Formats: sequence, C-alpha cells, structure tokens
Amino acid sequence: MIRKRTNKPSDIRTPLNRQENSRGTIKQRFQPMKRKIVDDPEDFIEMPNKKEDEAEKENTVRFAALGGLEEIGRNMSFFEYKNEIVIIDAGLQFPEEDTPGIDYIIPNVEYLEINKRKIKALIITHAHYDHIGAIPYIMEKLGNPVIYTTALTKAIILKRQEDFSNSPKLYFEVIKNHDIIKISDNIEIEFFGIIHSIPDIVSALIKTPVGNFVYCTDVKFDYDEKGNTLGLDEFKWVSQKGIHTLFLESTNAEVPGLSASEKLVEKNIEDIFKKTKGRLIIGTFASMLTRLAEIIKIAEKYDRKVFISGLSMKTNIQISQNLGYIKIKKGTLLSLDELHKYKDDKILVLSTGAQGEPSASLMKVVTGEHRQLQIKPGDTVIFSSSVIPGNERQVQSLKDNLTRQGAKVYHSKIVDLHASGHATGDELKQIIKLVKPNYYLPIHGNYFMRSINAELAQEVGLPKENTLLVDNGQIVKFTKNHAKATEEAVPAFYIMVDGLGVGDVGEIVMRDRRLLAQEGMVVIIATLDRKSGRFLKNPDIISRGFIYLNENKELIEELRNKIKGIVTRMPKRQAIESDYLKSLIRDQIGQFLYNKTKRRPMVLPVVIEV
Amino acid sequence: MIRKRTNKPSDIRTPLNRQENSRGTIKQRFQPMKRKIVDDPEDFIEMPNKKEDEAEKENTVRFAALGGLEEIGRNMSFFEYKNEIVIIDAGLQFPEEDTPGIDYIIPNVEYLEINKRKIKALIITHAHYDHIGAIPYIMEKLGNPVIYTTALTKAIILKRQEDFSNSPKLYFEVIKNHDIIKISDNIEIEFFGIIHSIPDIVSALIKTPVGNFVYCTDVKFDYDEKGNTLGLDEFKWVSQKGIHTLFLESTNAEVPGLSASEKLVEKNIEDIFKKTKGRLIIGTFASMLTRLAEIIKIAEKYDRKVFISGLSMKTNIQISQNLGYIKIKKGTLLSLDELHKYKDDKILVLSTGAQGEPSASLMKVVTGEHRQLQIKPGDTVIFSSSVIPGNERQVQSLKDNLTRQGAKVYHSKIVDLHASGHATGDELKQIIKLVKPNYYLPIHGNYFMRSINAELAQEVGLPKENTLLVDNGQIVKFTKNHAKATEEAVPAFYIMVDGLGVGDVGEIVMRDRRLLAQEGMVVIIATLDRKSGRFLKNPDIISRGFIYLNENKELIEELRNKIKGIVTRMPKRQAIESDYLKSLIRDQIGQFLYNKTKRRPMVLPVVIEV
Repeated sequence: MIRKRTNKPSDIRTPLNRQENSRGTIKQRFQPMKRKIVDDPEDFIEMPNKKEDEAEKENTVRFAALGGLEEIGRNMSFFEYKNEIVIIDAGLQFPEEDTPGIDYIIPNVEYLEINKRKIKALIITHAHYDHIGAIPYIMEKLGNPVIYTTALTKAIILKRQEDFSNSPKLYFEVIKNHDIIKISDNIEIEFFGIIHSIPDIVSALIKTPVGNFVYCTDVKFDYDEKGNTLGLDEFKWVSQKGIHTLFLESTNAEVPGLSASEKLVEKNIEDIFKKTKGRLIIGTFASMLTRLAEIIKIAEKYDRKVFISGLSMKTNIQISQNLGYIKIKKGTLLSLDELHKYKDDKILVLSTGAQGEPSASLMKVVTGEHRQLQIKPGDTVIFSSSVIPGNERQVQSLKDNLTRQGAKVYHSKIVDLHASGHATGDELKQIIKLVKPNYYLPIHGNYFMRSINAELAQEVGLPKENTLLVDNGQIVKFTKNHAKATEEAVPAFYIMVDGLGVGDVGEIVMRDRRLLAQEGMVVIIATLDRKSGRFLKNPDIISRGFIYLNENKELIEELRNKIKGIVTRMPKRQAIESDYLKSLIRDQIGQFLYNKTKRRPMVLPVVIEV
Repeated sequence: MIRKRTNKPSDIRTPLNRQENSRGTIKQRFQPMKRKIVDDPEDFIEMPNKKEDEAEKENTVRFAALGGLEEIGRNMSFFEYKNEIVIIDAGLQFPEEDTPGIDYIIPNVEYLEINKRKIKALIITHAHYDHIGAIPYIMEKLGNPVIYTTALTKAIILKRQEDFSNSPKLYFEVIKNHDIIKISDNIEIEFFGIIHSIPDIVSALIKTPVGNFVYCTDVKFDYDEKGNTLGLDEFKWVSQKGIHTLFLESTNAEVPGLSASEKLVEKNIEDIFKKTKGRLIIGTFASMLTRLAEIIKIAEKYDRKVFISGLSMKTNIQISQNLGYIKIKKGTLLSLDELHKYKDDKILVLSTGAQGEPSASLMKVVTGEHRQLQIKPGDTVIFSSSVIPGNERQVQSLKDNLTRQGAKVYHSKIVDLHASGHATGDELKQIIKLVKPNYYLPIHGNYFMRSINAELAQEVGLPKENTLLVDNGQIVKFTKNHAKATEEAVPAFYIMVDGLGVGDVGEIVMRDRRLLAQEGMVVIIATLDRKSGRFLKNPDIISRGFIYLNENKELIEELRNKIKGIVTRMPKRQAIESDYLKSLIRDQIGQFLYNKTKRRPMVLPVVIEV
C-alpha cells in the first residue's frame, strides 16, 4: 500500500482543469482519476518491499502526515516503528472555494486501515475541530484504538459523538501533564503542557529506540503584566531529554515580532465594558474557551448577566464548567429567554458567528431570524476573533448590517481585541532554541509557511539539511543519526464529507459543480422514432444557471432548429448511433451557444428512442 | 422613473435564499424578482411627482450614486440641477462569491438613460477600472456625452475601447488641473490634482447656484524623506471657495495612523535589489503606474534590464511612456523573448498576477504555461501589492508554488513592499479639516467603512446631522443651507456582464448557479405513452455534481423504482397531468435523495409523452 510519489511537477499537469492548476502545481489534493486505479491497480500502487532489510526495520522510525502540511486543518500524523503505530490527532478541514457544497475534508486513512492491527494508540492533543473533527468518520476503519487525551478534550469528543449514533463506542485513557504512558513494547509517551486558546492541551514527547521526538501542535506565547513570557519551563524540561526531532506548527511563522498578550486583550475588552451603557454583544469562536472564561469574569466584575447565543458555545462552556476549567458564579449565566427582563447595562451576550457564517447566531441576529435577540441603537458589538482567510467578505457584510441596525462595532483593526492562538516566527525561534533538537520538521501550514518556519530553525543554528519540508503522505525515515524525506508516500488526498457520504464525492463531482457554478447547464432531449430516426416531437430544452430562457424565446427557437438540423443531417442507417449523435449535439450546440453568448454552459444531450 | 425605496429591513426578507440573507439584510443588490415588474409595473415604479414645485427645482441640486456605496468598485454618481446632469465616473465591480461565473458588475443607468437629454458631461477622475470599466457598456445608453478627463486617462480608455468594436466613437475634452469648464448654463467645474497610485488623477470642484461641491474619489497621502506631507496645498486652495459638501472616499477609513510612504516602499524594494544576485520578479497591479515608474528607475540604477510580463501592464507602461509619465532609458525595456540572452543578475521581470488570478502572468509561470519564464532556484519574487479581500487563498497557493519551485518570496507582512493608494482615517481627517465643508458625504465603501468615515468628520467638528450616510440609488437633495437624504431612489441594483450578455443574467440565474454549485442536479426523464400513461422505456436519469452515478448503481435502481411507483400511482384520467406529475417527481424524489444522502440536488423532472 506504499506507492511511489507521483506528485512531482511533471506529473500533475495532466487531468486537472484550469482552476486546479491555479490551486496547486504540486500538491496532490484530489485522487488521481479513479478509473486508473480500478483499471490497473498494479500500475499505480506498489506493494512494500518484502525483502526490506530487517536491520533497517529495527533501526527506523517512519513518519507521515495525512493532512495539515498543505493547509490549515485536517491535522493527522502517525509514527511507525516495526509493528507499532501511534497516531496523533484526527482533524477535519473546512471546505475551500474549489470544493463547493461539501461539509468537511477529512484525512485519508487508507494506509492505516490496512495496517490497523499495528495501531497502538490515537493521541489527541486538544479539542479543536482541526484536531478532533475526523474522529466519528474514521475510528471504525482504524479498529477503534484507545484514545489518549485530557479530560476536557475527552468530554468535547464525547459530546460531538452524540451526533453520530452509528459510530462505535470510544475507549479513552485520560492523561495529564507528565503522565508517562507505555504505549507498546518499544514506544513510551510523556505528555507536557503548552498554552493555546483552549485549556487542557498537551504536547507529546515520544520516546522510541531510535530517539526522542517532540510533537508540538498549536502553541501560543502569552505574557504576564510585566511582559514575562509564560510557560517556557516545559520546553526547557523537554530539552534535557535529548531531542532527535522537533515537530512544530507553522500557522504564524511568517508573522514577525511578539504576540499580543491575553492580558492586553482583556484590558481592551474591559475598557469597552467601562464605557458602554447599552447592551454588549461579543462575537468569538465557541472553541476559544480561555478567552471566554476571562470575559465572563469581566462581566461579573461589571455586574452584567451573561447570555450565551449559539449551541456550540453553550455546550463548550457547560463542559468546561463541569470540569472546573471555567468558574462562574451562581446567577451569572442566564437563558436568552430571560434577556428581556434585564436592563441594557446589565446584559452581555456571548455569541458565535463572528466569521459571518450564514447559520451561526450573529448572522441570525442581523437577518431577524434570531428568536430572542435583535440589534437596536445603543448596542455595542465586539469582534474578538481574527478573520479566517476566505471569510473577509461575509464578515464585512455582517459589520455593515450591524452598523446599519444601529450597533457600535469594535474590531481588531483599531485595538487588540483578539490575540492569535499561534506563536509568531520570533516566538517559534525561542521554542527551537530551548528544545535544541537535532532535526526540525515544520507541521501545520502551507508550503510557504513551513518553508519560512524551516528558515527560522536555520536562523537559530540548525543546518539546512536538518530541516525537513515534506508533503502530506510523504514518508520520512528517522534513524539514530539521520532523518530523510523519502520518495515513498501513503495516500493522503482529500476525503470529502458531503451529507451522509464520506469519500463518495470525488474530483469529477467537484469539477462538475465548479463548471455548473460558472456557466450553468443546458439539457437537450431529442425524442426520436427508433425506426426512422425522425423526431417524434420538438426537442425539449431545459436550462439552469445559463440564461433565463423565458426571456430568450428567440434563442430557444434557433437552438431547436439547430438541433433538428443536426439530426436531419445524420446518415440514415439501420440503428441510430446514439453516442455519436450525442457528441455531435454536445459539440455543435456548445459552439453555437458560445458564438451567441460567449458562455460555455455544460451541454447534456439525451437521445430517447421510442 | 423615481421609485419609493423598497430596501428597508422589513422588505428584503422574502424572496432571497439563505446566502442572500448572509450578504445583506438591507442593501439591495439584485433586482426584485423580474416577474413582479412585468406583471404589474405600476405596483413597483412610481413616476416622479409632476406637480413638483418649480421653486424647489430652482433651489435644489439632486445627487445619487449608482454604485460604490455598498462595495469597493462600480463607482458612478451624478448631480442633477434643473435640466442638467453631470455624471462622475463609470466603473465596474469584480464578481463576488455569490455571483459566480459572471465577468463584471456594472452600474444600472436606467434613470440616466431615460433622462439622457439632460446629460451634459461625463467626468472621469482617473484610469482605474473601478472608475472607467463600465464605459464601453453604457455610453450608448447615455447618448454618448462628452467625456471630460485627463490625457493619460483618455489614452487608457481608448485602448480598452479597441476590445469593443461595436461601441460608438467617444468624444473627449482633455482637461488639466485648474482648467475651468463651463459644463452647462448653471454648472461650472474646476479640476484639481490629488495623489493616488496612478498619475493624472483629478478631483472636481462642482460650482452650482446652490453651492460648491467637492467630489474627491481615490486619494492617498504621501510623504517626502523628511516626513512632510505632500499635496495638501490643493485642499487649502479649494477650501477658500467655500464648500457646501465634501464627498470623500472611505476605503481605508477604519485604518488608524498614517500611510507608509512610497519612498519607504521604494527603499525596501531597493534593499532587495542590492542583496539579490539572481533574477528578480516583481508582481504588482498593471494599474499601479506611479510605483512601476519608480521600480524601473531602480532597475536602471542597478543595471538590470526590464522585461514586462502581462499584456495590460505592457500596454499601460507604453501609454504612460508615450505621454511622458514614465521615462525609460533606451535599451532598458526588452522583450521577454530576449530573456534567455541575459545573465540572472541583469534581469528584472515586472509581472501581473500578484493576486493569484488564474489567467494572469505569474500564475502561468508557476503552472508551466508561460512561454518564456519558469521559476528556478535562486529567483526572487516580490509581491508589491496588497491582497484584495477574497483572494487570500489563491495568493497563498501562488506563494506556495513559487517557494516549492525554488524562489525566495518577499511580501508585505514582513517589510513594507506596498503602500495603499488610499488615505487612512487620520489622513482623511486632515482633508476634512482643510476643506472645511458644511456637509460631508462619505463615498466608496461598504456601510461600515462609510459610517466610520462619517465619525471622522464628526471628530473634527461637523455636527452628526451634517454627515450623510446614503445608499446606492438614494436621492440626496441639496439646497443652499440644507442637505437631506430623501426616501426616493433611482434603480441601482446590479447589472451583470456575462460573456456577450449585459443584464440578461439576473437573480434567478445566479441563484440556480449557487444551488448547482452546492448540491448539483439530477434530471429525470419519464417517457410515457400519451394514451395509457405508461412508461415506454425505463426512466432516464442524468446527474452532474451530485454523486458519481457510475459508482452508485444501487441508488439508481432504487431511484428508477421510486419514479415508476410515482407514475403508477397517478390516477388514470384521459390526459396525463404533466405539471402535476412533475411536481410529484420533484418533491418525492427530492425527499428520497435527501433521506438517502442528506443532500438536496436540484431535481429537474421531464415528462415526455409520445
């Protein structure tokens, strides 16, 4: 199930359309045309080398990422040593412009499924969807291995699992910082704590006979009031173990300087509390639990009741409260149904939808679909979040509408009302300097971000050849004194989730959706007499997304005549060559419509013989 | 042709789908359902009040923007005094996420077309597409009025006009700063110069019997080496005329502080020239002529030949050179065909496509479609442009691919390699303070940006009621001592250009394209015997963008049986009730597919009776 990597520049330029080219000349996001695999699997898939040297096996840890190396999201990686596999994270990725209509993209676990008897553990570092989101879809395929994670992460995973009634019962080992877990004969893992925008996140020190690996997913730097950096001790501690390779995220690698501190963000938010007389509405991510906890404290200080709008936020806060991660005084948290009972200056609403998501709470408020909350003049809305690339326009529209309806809007362009959950380039350098690894492998981010991240390591002294830039699926071999990105890869192309379907929407369907969105389609139905090959009725024409046919009667008439002409000119033989006729209609009508309109709708000919 | 404004919150919530709601609760972008107008035009369009007071007419200047007040782009406004209309700019807007497949959005000139005999002038402030792009589509409708503009703008308009062979010959009056033009009996215009990212831009001082109006489109602040602000004298000069209302752009109103100076940008670019040994490629906008002129100077200083990649950039530079706006030494500018003759350290390529546009030059380079230029290790690529909202992902992909192919990439996150062409909030305040208008009307920008801009005017002393926030189409009435945004509006909804069609793609087609992109479609063809109502053949099923049917034979079989069941259960009457049968198929098959897949493809039933 290992195959030669086919994603070299020279290979990928064939079946993809223009839009594909625009997204990636190298990275392989979609499965190579399915037919190819079905027709001749041997041509494509190469079995592992059976005569592989036993000594090599003894001395080698293999690693591959199944996602996260060409995108923000879909984080999932695994380490393999002899017959033992340890997986880290199982995240999802949100759809992109060129994957319209799908719900999520999840990692491809084909290789792990075949090798599921080797899987000893699934480690989940923290409870964000780009790290836990694929769990309901893949656990059965993985043979339902034990999940090692923290108490909060376990609770959030279990809550989500309720939406997937058919998935198997999950098995957990709850871990805490500095728990040491003997995962298998040869692998031991020690967890250690880092800071992020959600509590109870861990990094993993993975001890193998080949060496010690540190796998550090999302990590942020925070500072106290005096500007002292928090949480560096753990990196000092881990460096004493002697680190073979450090895996470190790249999200903000290209951002210079230091992060804004949460203290500053809290101060700025508190300043708005002080000067606001009307209702306060704060939009942020449901998963930003650390910030939410602080905001609730501020609300208590300024004697405002807290109303939560958005199911995911309500759930997350409840779970965190149950586990003691958020402490809320009795009577602070109230139901939105009671909103009308309180004066404006006693109200704080915490809301989802700060990205302008159409179905989230804040958008429902401005469209008037929210049952308990509408904007009125005097309201103040704070956006305490960054704008995820791709969401700019919908956030703009949300701000427009809030302002139109009379709200005063604060967002981070003017003062810091949000601090990123990810360390900047300068901060990543501090981590690398503290951990002192022999090798460095940037994870979590597009190639450009990871290449900047690799340069950071070089700036603090690692030789260039000790920094590794690898692709999703690409196998890296670690021996005691060496690390090598091989030419082998496991499948890592997109698995798309669309409704109930997992993986049934492939590149062909995506391509059709993109074409339909651009130019629409025209269905042409020719109903012919089987014997004479003559029309039994006028050709039927249906079109959607092309032009509004009711207003273009003339074009329809011309089109009908054109179709009749094509059929009339067909050579008269015994049987109608239906495929040939269809391709004639497709080509000639396509060209005709292009000449008339300079558009290329999808032309779908149907020949019905009666 | 004036109609009551219908775009109040309560009105817009009816026919639009969810995605519409997410984009605008109030702003009216699409024409209200066409059928409504056709069925009962009187219900929708109100004729102007015939008994309008002659005295009011005498004392009132009316103003409306046909675009630019809910978006960046599609800038077009007009002033009307008695029987005289002056139009300013005629720009286009680029398509948005929810207008897939179209080429441009242009202003609606319905009102002006009806009143074309009143039009005395079209003033074009500068040669950017959001100010000139609609010209080829609308001039005939406007009765081809004289265009007042500068020499460079005229040349760029004429060059573009070559692509539109059927449009009428244009008539120009070339103007220079401080030319005073008597446009009509009552209106006189004096032009004055401002700074922007393209040379030869003007602002207009519009003198009417009611008062003097200053219409200031895109404007930037620039600073000399000592930090002194350039170009403020013109605003001081104009303030002496006594200004009734200042119209000023809002693009960067929410940005605090001062703009980076072009001098700093040039210095940073020069620093990269100094340290680069390999080839240099600079990606920027073809329209950023001031910057391009400076970069060419730097290239000459460092003895690099300049190769231009991208037709629009080549054309713009040639025009500017012909008119003396860019001075280039002989032998500096060479054809890309000669690129191979020069050593790497003698090469500078200026390229379009810094936004990751699929068909622009830089993208062709990374996809291997560029005839003369491929990336090789040692190349340096500078992005000297901002990322337009919505283009983030394709720019990321472009940077990924350039880096993968071995280029070193510089962009503005790390040092200033681009300065915006638009004044910041603090700089806008300086303009308002200098011009000292009685009234202030922010233009060019979404509601939120304009509301921030209005606040800026209030901060420097204008009473809130003297700052006007109006919508596209909304009519503003100015009298000597008053300015009022009325409840009347002229049509200002989107006119979409798609191929050869202008305005023939409306909201219905757009909605279908969005639906098709999200879920795809299924065509179901039932061929029935006219007499018996029985199937003459198996139902035909065609699907695109839904699921790949070839791999879902079982679902097709179930679908066929379901369709047969629906037809069989139809009551037997004399004629087949085709519409009823179609609606049964649409509803029941739609529900069936949703239950099976949790997707809602567009179901298009066709009943063929033979």
